[in-house]
Amino acid sequence: MQKPSIPKGTRDFGPEVTAKRKYIIKTIEEVFRLYAFNPLETPAMENLSVLTGKYGDEGDQLLFKIINSGDFLKKSEQRDFDSGSQSLLPKIAEKGLRYDLTVPFARYVVMNQNEITFPFKRYQIQPVWRADRPQKGRYREFYQCDADIVGTQAEFQQGWKEVELTLLIKEVFGRLRLKDFEIKVNHRDVLFGIADYVGMKGQEIPFCVALDKLDKIGMEAVLQEVAAHGGNLEKLGSILDVITGKKSIPSLLSDLKNLISTSEKGFNELSTYFQNLPDTEKVILDFSLARGLSYYTGIIFEVKPTSVDMGSISGGGRYDNLTSVFGLSNVSGIGISFGLDRIYDVIQELGLFPATSKASTKVLITHFNTENMQHGMKLVQNLRAHNISSELYAESSKIKKQFQYADKNSIPFVLVIGDKEMQTGKYSLKELSSGKQESLSEDEIINKFSHI
Amino acid sequence: MQKPSIPKGTRDFGPEVTAKRKYIIKTIEEVFRLYAFNPLETPAMENLSVLTGKYGDEGDQLLFKIINSGDFLKKSEQRDFDSGSQSLLPKIAEKGLRYDLTVPFARYVVMNQNEITFPFKRYQIQPVWRADRPQKGRYREFYQCDADIVGTQAEFQQGWKEVELTLLIKEVFGRLRLKDFEIKVNHRDVLFGIADYVGMKGQEIPFCVALDKLDKIGMEAVLQEVAAHGGNLEKLGSILDVITGKKSIPSLLSDLKNLISTSEKGFNELSTYFQNLPDTEKVILDFSLARGLSYYTGIIFEVKPTSVDMGSISGGGRYDNLTSVFGLSNVSGIGISFGLDRIYDVIQELGLFPATSKASTKVLITHFNTENMQHGMKLVQNLRAHNISSELYAESSKIKKQFQYADKNSIPFVLVIGDKEMQTGKYSLKELSSGKQESLSEDEIINKFSHI
Repeated sequence: MQKPSIPKGTRDFGPEVTAKRKYIIKTIEEVFRLYAFNPLETPAMENLSVLTGKYGDEGDQLLFKIINSGDFLKKSEQRDFDSGSQSLLPKIAEKGLRYDLTVPFARYVVMNQNEITFPFKRYQIQPVWRADRPQKGRYREFYQCDADIVGTQAEFQQGWKEVELTLLIKEVFGRLRLKDFEIKVNHRDVLFGIADYVGMKGQEIPFCVALDKLDKIGMEAVLQEVAAHGGNLEKLGSILDVITGKKSIPSLLSDLKNLISTSEKGFNELSTYFQNLPDTEKVILDFSLARGLSYYTGIIFEVKPTSVDMGSISGGGRYDNLTSVFGLSNVSGIGISFGLDRIYDVIQELGLFPATSKASTKVLITHFNTENMQHGMKLVQNLRAHNISSELYAESSKIKKQFQYADKNSIPFVLVIGDKEMQTGKYSLKELSSGKQESLSEDEIINKFSHI
Repeated sequence: MQKPSIPKGTRDFGPEVTAKRKYIIKTIEEVFRLYAFNPLETPAMENLSVLTGKYGDEGDQLLFKIINSGDFLKKSEQRDFDSGSQSLLPKIAEKGLRYDLTVPFARYVVMNQNEITFPFKRYQIQPVWRADRPQKGRYREFYQCDADIVGTQAEFQQGWKEVELTLLIKEVFGRLRLKDFEIKVNHRDVLFGIADYVGMKGQEIPFCVALDKLDKIGMEAVLQEVAAHGGNLEKLGSILDVITGKKSIPSLLSDLKNLISTSEKGFNELSTYFQNLPDTEKVILDFSLARGLSYYTGIIFEVKPTSVDMGSISGGGRYDNLTSVFGLSNVSGIGISFGLDRIYDVIQELGLFPATSKASTKVLITHFNTENMQHGMKLVQNLRAHNISSELYAESSKIKKQFQYADKNSIPFVLVIGDKEMQTGKYSLKELSSGKQESLSEDEIINKFSHI
């Protein structure tokens, strides 16, 4: 018999890990709701006509495709087979697994445009699938936790939504007790304007990669790297002088705006954003931030933990024309996405999971004989009626085995019922971690756990 | 441009429906945890070697299969194509979507048998996929909410776990405020024994179908139907005499046990079950209940609402050899599964969703000008700091449009900030449903919503 296995790049999540993942999801979801986002869920499967062409050629390759049901070859001819996989594919597969939550959201907005009240604030927390080569920290099934606001372009002119999302990010990580992180902010127009100004139009990514090294390798090295791409070193020098000039953000933005006349809108939006922000703690203006260039059109964000070596754990920004690919124009938006898996790794590495996120069962009721157990059944039901997660060891077993069960399942308390306990109505309650033992009545036990 | 669509048999869940679904899931999950079940999550994709052959031939047809990534035809030859879909399939697809939560659970237990502490209590709430023909109430993607206890057969001998699951069922539907339901109970050995006794061995399903009609069409009609299948009417008559004799459950079971000597174990287990049950309210002994004959080996359950026309909304029972198909013997268990979609329909039809399950946002803050809005930003942050889900209308807009937004999004309260309100620190708070208006300070508002 073959040993069972799971597909590579996928994972089972056992009790402790699932409980911790649920704690993160619950925290993010509570903040989404606190900020008045409404839940949306879409199917795991989408029509390939919806998915294909939305993520570039590479993305199309990474879509998981589902074979049509029944006799899937019925539409195929010999020449489809002869021409190979890419020719046969459209004849045998019409559906694929969602690749992200944004395209399904855009599809939903288009299909329900007449029922939706704009601006529409939705959150969505669901798994996505990508046929990427699995490696450390990269999986073929992973969760995204997205919140977006969409509406007409006119509804996005004053920049308050950027501020709201910044506060939301801080609230999420604050509740997760992560203190060491920074929110990097840039503006797509400003990024393009600077790259253009230094002679690297069309080479925005290499430009950002070079600029990103400013802190690490210094100005000279950045100049060399930009020179290698044919950039204008004199103009770059004047930019770097401003950036490294330790100015306040408003005057930095104003000085750069004077140099780069093509990006006035971008500089103005960044200025307004920083002006409206209640405080700039943890918010870093970073001109080397280049997030999804083809998609975003305004302010962009990225969150990085600062005390662990980890890529971005959250990111997002302003976009226009979300739905134009589905024939609905003039839908603009702003969104933020939290990466569950990376956040998990950070929280785990820093030891920030609260004890309560691990196991929920508070007490195991143990017993010596059937009569004790029958008595225990009433007791466990009474504890549960008081919302105390508890368990009756549901077989006659040696008391040692019952205690081991509690220990292995991280159940913190064990209650023992013997004949004497039944007579006196006082039960012995032992805390496994400390070994401390108390003799308590049913009411006292309920009272104790109601306060834990 | 093609209008976007979703695959047939799948659904988008908009804000209100998703919120209600989450309310049901949360309720079930809370009870699972209260009863000391631990969470497990498995990947959406499983290897086809794990799924195939576990659900019968029909089930294999209903599996959604995923095409291998990249050049999926590289292992295929001309003769595979010539022989048709069923021959080509294993060459081009190695993975499928999970069909239920039981087989992935069994796989998990086998793969992690050395780390698991038995008896192992797990719950799992995830979607499953079946390529069934879509029809009313039948979808290609739907949620299952399962709780199972597995261990060695010795750990299941005293029948307490059956009692626990019965109480769990009552707790779930109690919390969902569903009063009108019944839990039908039968035992697989008893069912087989009776069918055998009346000469319908191997025809258990037609026998149960006939017996199920006893209440509706009467004893004569049941006898006729059984006769049509060649059953022994005299023996059936003696069974029906006992069943319709209005006896207490203990004496009913004891009388039948005397007739049907082959099912002693089954009758004993049913007797113990009813004896251990704290109360038999809503629990019906129903000899016509035949649930998953090939799978269950002991007591079986099914829950049906009694005031709406709907099939079973929950079901389960005792099984042996869960994992033998994966090479691990002697793993027995008992499980219960709740069907989210049907429960949703019942709760909806009976109007049992609490108002709080629909929308979470309590208050919309509206304003007349930018200064008011800046003021509102501070106010909304303060409300959120007090855990009050609230929203600032984040653009300058006509006040009427802002009120409409609250109305359409079911936000119950609207707070208005004008210049006067900013001066006095008293804000006008309007309840949309009643039209009632109050003038309140920030502290009074926070106090009010903390008590809603």
